[in-house]
Formats: sequence, structure tokens, C-alpha cells
Amino acid sequence: MNESATQQRVVLFTPDDPLVLASGEELAEVEVAYKTYGQLDADASNAVFICHALTGDAYAAEWWSALVGPGKPVDTNRFFVICPNLLGGCQGTTGPRSINPLTGERYGLDFPQLAMTDFVTVHRRLLAHVGVERLYAAVGGSLGGMQILQWAIDVPDAIDRAVLIGASSRLTAMNIAFSAVARQSIMGDPDFADGAYPDGSGPRQGLAVARMLAHITYLSGAALTEKFDRRLQHSGEPNRDFGIDFAVESYLDYQGKSFLERFDALTYLYLSRVMDYFDPFADPTAVERIASGSTRFLVLSFDSDWRFDTSQSQRIVDVLDAGKVPVRFREINSLWGHDSFLMELPGYQSEVAEFLC
Amino acid sequence: MNESATQQRVVLFTPDDPLVLASGEELAEVEVAYKTYGQLDADASNAVFICHALTGDAYAAEWWSALVGPGKPVDTNRFFVICPNLLGGCQGTTGPRSINPLTGERYGLDFPQLAMTDFVTVHRRLLAHVGVERLYAAVGGSLGGMQILQWAIDVPDAIDRAVLIGASSRLTAMNIAFSAVARQSIMGDPDFADGAYPDGSGPRQGLAVARMLAHITYLSGAALTEKFDRRLQHSGEPNRDFGIDFAVESYLDYQGKSFLERFDALTYLYLSRVMDYFDPFADPTAVERIASGSTRFLVLSFDSDWRFDTSQSQRIVDVLDAGKVPVRFREINSLWGHDSFLMELPGYQSEVAEFLC
Repeated sequence: MNESATQQRVVLFTPDDPLVLASGEELAEVEVAYKTYGQLDADASNAVFICHALTGDAYAAEWWSALVGPGKPVDTNRFFVICPNLLGGCQGTTGPRSINPLTGERYGLDFPQLAMTDFVTVHRRLLAHVGVERLYAAVGGSLGGMQILQWAIDVPDAIDRAVLIGASSRLTAMNIAFSAVARQSIMGDPDFADGAYPDGSGPRQGLAVARMLAHITYLSGAALTEKFDRRLQHSGEPNRDFGIDFAVESYLDYQGKSFLERFDALTYLYLSRVMDYFDPFADPTAVERIASGSTRFLVLSFDSDWRFDTSQSQRIVDVLDAGKVPVRFREINSLWGHDSFLMELPGYQSEVAEFLC
Repeated sequence: MNESATQQRVVLFTPDDPLVLASGEELAEVEVAYKTYGQLDADASNAVFICHALTGDAYAAEWWSALVGPGKPVDTNRFFVICPNLLGGCQGTTGPRSINPLTGERYGLDFPQLAMTDFVTVHRRLLAHVGVERLYAAVGGSLGGMQILQWAIDVPDAIDRAVLIGASSRLTAMNIAFSAVARQSIMGDPDFADGAYPDGSGPRQGLAVARMLAHITYLSGAALTEKFDRRLQHSGEPNRDFGIDFAVESYLDYQGKSFLERFDALTYLYLSRVMDYFDPFADPTAVERIASGSTRFLVLSFDSDWRFDTSQSQRIVDVLDAGKVPVRFREINSLWGHDSFLMELPGYQSEVAEFLC
């Protein structure tokens, strides 16, 4: 892999200048892994920030090739695109598996609980590091969109165009329930070892089940039928046992196992819990703060997304509308449920491209 | 508990007269636990058979008090009601935790795979035992309804009135997917021990997670919001940790733990797998066999049931209609998702009562 293909790393907070979290706790060292695409122009006016979702990473042009790349809606020939791995992550940025400089051991469950605004604090510091004061746009799906909403509240003049895709301003009871089961699966696995599992070990069974469950909720029932229906994974008669017989079982098994190669159980806990508590419009001044700035919003949902359904996007739109914040909303027709935000779909790319014109 | 309140037990198959399963395998001893309510009339014409769902038992008037009892739609003052625990079950009927007479050990995973028609075979033998040849009605929800559909195919003249509630003639890919994750959670728990866990032990963590997951799918998103929304389980500020903070988390935790007191992991595997493979209308002669008898059908679904949604009931209705089998269909309005079949709801009890007139 040549240098330009890899992510960069920068230490943004140090013991002399720690990251002070919303909780009041401090992180004495925060390193951030990030990726950039394209060139920053002379007046630093063409920066687009990409915020990743729960299990994403800095390689935006790879996992979000539907939107990010040369000639794509987030056109890397035109924009300077920057995407970091999230605080609390496991793909290069400081997280619960990092070494706690105070103990010399991995944080584990001693890593502090995070809030959405903590992500924004780190994003802002990273932007300052690369010499950008104001964003042409910020774009995120799911948890990514939630970060951008928080950012527009925290710093009303930082983002010109905010694109929130399949996002939410407040998880539902069902959303929280699915994440609670996933966490229970992880934490109840004996190999979780109270978060102090050794390198090369961890709650593989629990994390795989969590991922399998999540994958069902990222697709619609119709999409699962379209992809798999009741087809067997093999030719001939069904095995009629408890192994993998149906194609959908093979798909979930693969998703669960491959996830273990790239993701960490503690990150899953920390990031999913940030989503549960996120509820910025519980503070009625939040929308006033957005309105005091100049951020315009594009809010997109997908009609088959039942994990973060259209009513959740609609609530964001309603609050922004009521606060006289400029917002364009569109529900995109798609078979593919929550995963739609990662896909090329009629009417989706064009909406984003037009908004970023 | 007095004698009339407890279930009865009867050995229906013995080494001299084993249960021959659809697979060709045999069970040399099958004991069935069952409960009866009301009195069989002189010509044995008032018998109503209740088939339970995945995690049910013989005590129909308890878990199905919405339908079964004195003055209820399945009126125990008028009908002789009989409900057995299913073959493969863990509430008194022979199942994978029973002693294999050939080895003197519990079957575990040596218990044979079952098919829907095997349940019917045992139900029929039980009916013969109590002296009933023909049923006034058979009533079942979810897996219960699936058994009744199979019964009407296997024995076209056995049931006068078949009531299928929130049932399916063919699980969807999403249905199979949820069950696959539940089974993976159970079988991947190290305490599953390949199904040979000692008494008082077993995959408690895996089974609790499976149950928590299932419970989400048994309710609608709107129902979870109605019951819990984002309320905390305690007064004051959120704990902001990985424990139980939201009321919906407490509910799921309780559902998972209480399930362990009454249910067995192997039964969960065996019964859920029967549902996956059930697809009787794949045989085009199935509906012809039903039509050759005199069974009339009432098919009910609930508009908020997304686990076994209305389209699955509609498919049963369409096939029966096309086969000229008398069928009445109604989708009941309800907030409560798949669990609606256990509840008292406007238009639900009256439909059943009228059909059983």
C-alpha cells in the first residue's frame, strides 16, 4: 500500500492540553487517524467533512463509494474531503483498546463514556490541524448524520451545508432495545472478561451475534426476500439440521465472522451507547443555536429503512422548520432499508450532488 | 395446587408402537403433558383443540386468557378444550431433554429433527386417547396456527373450524434470519456444551439474548414507544453507563432472565427449526387435500405484526381461496405487533366467538 492510500495519524490532545469531555472527564492523549482526498484550495473553502457510522472508519472513498470519489456527489476532484476514525473507535483513533497513559494498560471499561459533542470537539481540533476553519459541507449517514447535527448546534457557523442521511435526533425505544441486546450479547460472553480481554482474544461469539442481529435490522424484509428468499445455500435437499442450510443463514454467518476481523467489542459498546443518549432537541435552545448560524440542511431518509425510519428524519426536519432553519427533505424510494445510505440509488446521488453545487 | 389445576400426562407411543417421524426416524417413547378444560359432551362433538406457539405450554387458559375460559370466545362452559405441550417441548412432553430409553441419557442433540406433521401425529394420538374423533374447532396463534394448517392438510376431515391467528404458511428470509441469530446465540454459548449440558446448567446467556431479541420482534416499534419511549428505569439523571438505564432495557432484561426459569434451550432450537422448514403449499396438492374435507377457516392477522405480517396470512387466504376452501380473513387493528394474538382487542375476540358459534 503506498503512502497516499493509507490513513494519517495525528496526536490532537496531550497531557498538557487534554480532551475535556462533556462528562467532565479528561483524556490525556488522543490520537486521531484520518484520511483525506483531493486538494484543499488556497482559501480553504472547499473542505467537506465525512462523519462515519457505528462501524465505519476513515476510508470514506471505500465504504462510501456511492457518494465519495472523483466525479461522485462528494467529488474529490473538486473538494478536499476529510474523514477521521471516531473517538472511541478501533481503526486508528484513540479508543477503549488504546493504552491508558496513566496506567500503561489498555483502558478497557475504564475508558470514559462519550457524548456526541465529544466527537465534535475532536473533529474541530482535526479541522484546525489541517487548516480549515469553515466547512463547505459535512456529510454523514446514521450515526454520522447525528454528529453533524450536534456540530451545527455546538458551532453554528462552522458548516455551510449539512447532509444528514438516515439519521435521527433521538433513538426510539426499539432502536435502544436492539442496541441493548447487542451489548448484552457482547458483555455476557465470558470472553469479554469485563472488558480486559487480552490481545487476539475477546468476546468473538457475542460480537458476532450482535453483528448478525444488526445486519438484519440494516436491511428491509423485502430486501432479505429479494436477496435470499428461502433459497438453500447448497444444491439438493435441505440438510434439516442446526447448521447453515438457508442462504440467509450463510450471509449472516459471514457477516458475523468477517466483522470480528476488523472491529472491536468495546468500541461497539461505547459508540452504540452514545447514540442511545443523543437527544439534542430536548434542549429547546438547540435549534435556536443552529438558526443563529448559516447552516443549510439536506435531510434524506429511505422509505424501507425501519431501523432509522423516515419519521425520525421527519422529526429533525420539523424541528428545523419550526426554528426557521433552511432545510430540504426527501424520502428516497429504496428496497434496501437502512443500508440504502451506502448504495447507488435513483434520486439519491443526484439529491446530494445538487445540494453540494 | 389441586389435581384439576395441573396438567395430565399420558404415554402415547411406546417401543412396541413407536412414533415414526416424517424423517423416518423413530421415537420409542413419547409422553405428552396436556390440560383439558370443560366437559366432553355425550357424542364428543364439542372438542376444541388449542395448539401453542414456540414458547407455550399446555395451560391454555392461562397464557391465552384472551380467548380461552368461561364465557370467553373459546368458552370452557360450552366446549371441551384440550391443549398439549408440543412434542420436542420442555413442559412435560417428550423432548430433547428427556431421557433416551436406548441410552439412559438425555437426548440432547441426538433428539431427531421434527417436522410440523410430527406434531399433528402426536395431537391425533392424544385426541384418540381422550375419545374425540372430530374437532369442533382447532385454534392456534403463530406456530400454533401452522400446526392447524398442517393438520387440515394431513387429515382433511378432522377439523370443522380452523382458526389461524398471526400464522404463516412459509417463513420469510427475515423470519429465518431472526431465528438463525437466536440459535447462534444459544449454540455459541460455551455452556451449551453441544447440547449435553448438565441439569441446572445450560446456555443461560445465549438463551436470554435469544429471548430478548425475540421479544423486540414480538412487539411493534410503536408499542415499544407507547410502553417505554425513552423513559429511564429510575428517577433522576441517567447513569450513562452500560447497565440498565432505559426502561426498555429493564423490560428486556426481565424477559430474558424470567424465560430461563421456564424454558429450555434445546426446545428453542428444535421448535424454531420446524418453523423454518414449514412450507406445505410448496406441494400443490396440499390445498386439494384440504378442499377434499370440510374444514372452514378463519385467518386473522394484526396490522402492526411485522414478525408474521399480514401478507403471510394473506398468502394462506389466497391459496385457500384459489382451492375453493371456505375462508374468512380479517386484519385486526392493533398497536401490539405479533403479541397481539395474546391480547384482548376490539374486533378480535368477537371474530373468534362468531366463527365458533
